[in-house]
Amino acid sequence: MQKPADSAADSAILPDWLPALLAGERAALARAITAVENETDEARLVLQAIRGRLGNALVVGFTGAPGAGKSTLVSAYVGELRRRQQNVGVVAVDPSSPLTGGAILGDRIRMTQHAADPGVFIRSLASRGHLGGLSRTAARVIDVFDASGRDVVVVETVGTGQSEVEIAEIADVRVVVNAPGLGDDVQAIKAGILEIADVLVVNKSDLPFAERSARQLAAMSAQRSGTAVPVLQTSALQGSGVPELADAIAAIGRRKRPDPRARTRRLLQNLVLDRLRRALADLPASELDVLADGVLAGRLDIETASWQIIDKLVSSLPKQK
Amino acid sequence: MQKPADSAADSAILPDWLPALLAGERAALARAITAVENETDEARLVLQAIRGRLGNALVVGFTGAPGAGKSTLVSAYVGELRRRQQNVGVVAVDPSSPLTGGAILGDRIRMTQHAADPGVFIRSLASRGHLGGLSRTAARVIDVFDASGRDVVVVETVGTGQSEVEIAEIADVRVVVNAPGLGDDVQAIKAGILEIADVLVVNKSDLPFAERSARQLAAMSAQRSGTAVPVLQTSALQGSGVPELADAIAAIGRRKRPDPRARTRRLLQNLVLDRLRRALADLPASELDVLADGVLAGRLDIETASWQIIDKLVSSLPKQK
Repeated sequence: MQKPADSAADSAILPDWLPALLAGERAALARAITAVENETDEARLVLQAIRGRLGNALVVGFTGAPGAGKSTLVSAYVGELRRRQQNVGVVAVDPSSPLTGGAILGDRIRMTQHAADPGVFIRSLASRGHLGGLSRTAARVIDVFDASGRDVVVVETVGTGQSEVEIAEIADVRVVVNAPGLGDDVQAIKAGILEIADVLVVNKSDLPFAERSARQLAAMSAQRSGTAVPVLQTSALQGSGVPELADAIAAIGRRKRPDPRARTRRLLQNLVLDRLRRALADLPASELDVLADGVLAGRLDIETASWQIIDKLVSSLPKQK
Repeated sequence: MQKPADSAADSAILPDWLPALLAGERAALARAITAVENETDEARLVLQAIRGRLGNALVVGFTGAPGAGKSTLVSAYVGELRRRQQNVGVVAVDPSSPLTGGAILGDRIRMTQHAADPGVFIRSLASRGHLGGLSRTAARVIDVFDASGRDVVVVETVGTGQSEVEIAEIADVRVVVNAPGLGDDVQAIKAGILEIADVLVVNKSDLPFAERSARQLAAMSAQRSGTAVPVLQTSALQGSGVPELADAIAAIGRRKRPDPRARTRRLLQNLVLDRLRRALADLPASELDVLADGVLAGRLDIETASWQIIDKLVSSLPKQK
């Protein structure tokens, strides 16, 4: 008779495996990330092993509107880090879509130039059904990279949806990438991501309007009192501006420091929001319709109705000890 | 001595004003929308007056990635509705950004061709600081349009941020606009908005790859079991495909019917989420850091920690009667 629990424990007591992870060995790293991503029994051991060994890697998040050339820029930035003798881990977060149920690989193609470089480890995360799951997996993979001695962990999020913004927020330093041109200067505002930026980039600076877009972004961010967010122009394809971007990120990293505690705090906030969102979606529509009818009939004002929904939602949550 | 409450009541007892609103008169409509938008004392009277008079207008939401030509398409669709003798209200929702604190008008410019047409009433909503406020205002303006005898209310949301998606969800029929080309076909997925679409549009169909993008969108939406979302190609600039789009929206409208109750239910859900988001952001960082430290030290697992945050959040909410 098979005992799956025992055999899982056996495979976890491999003597050389967890030390090899902490020493940054590639095979151990791959195994640890797979364990964490699939939440196997080994994952718990991995998370135990890396505890107390976090805070060395600077976590840099890249996000921005589709078409801004984010992946190409991340690839160029990784190349620059390698020239500076830095070990790099890349977490590419794919959208959580019930349609694909997995990774969309198109944007990953441009990263393959680093595939043969042992100093770069790239992992594309598949969807985990809901935002909370994806956030948690991304955070754990970041921690595994951190503990394994990577100097920089780059988190690239595809697109500008809420999930991507929330995952990018986990990072220590957040880079928001824009493309130049009419209207593009307000893309970042439109998506609500300008507010989270530590560095603003106008990529594809060889295109017209790059200068103007950079000026407009600088003016917009200057309107925020007390902060001066650097605005850089890059051309990832031509390589221009990329060393300056690496310098700017490093300077912010020296000021903000790698901060596993803040990363964990933001992860917890993401998980809470995701749980509340799902609890709200799970409330019976019929109960909400009674309240909607009350609002439409003028028996109930909309504020009172929404508080009553919050009461229902709170009651629907499982009781903690 | 002035009595502001009395004087507000006085101005509200204007005999001809509220009936004029229900008769669809333009000046009364403008006044009602301004009252609702600014939450003046008159707003309450407006909302009372329109109660019981909702459910005639079909509410059509347009959303999609920046650069897809959404505004031009909305303008062409409005023109088509006018040719069909329909009265139209347009609610253009601008991003809620602390940076601008108001309406960004760039995308509105293309609507001005309808400015002189009494059958079209366009209102651009300024930001109200947070998502809940913007959702509520948009829903109330929709209701005012509905009660005033508009046949169709178009809600155009700028960009693809979470707030825009949530506001578009209020609509009876949701149109997601895409631009053709490499990568654009997955923009909708990236932004998480494909899931809410009743109609998918590939605009700028004169550009290369339009056919391919339409096929890919059709394949992606076909993967959802039980639904067959129409995929249309339009060229808003050339006017092609716009009558077919109006036909498709009208067909869905006959099936789904204008539904003020569902609109109100979705509005309430938006308000609840917004309130919970803000309550979470208001929790003291120090309390969250204690939990984050517990997770990092292995004393606390991440699920338990997030439930403890939910407990704190629930305790922080004001008590209802």
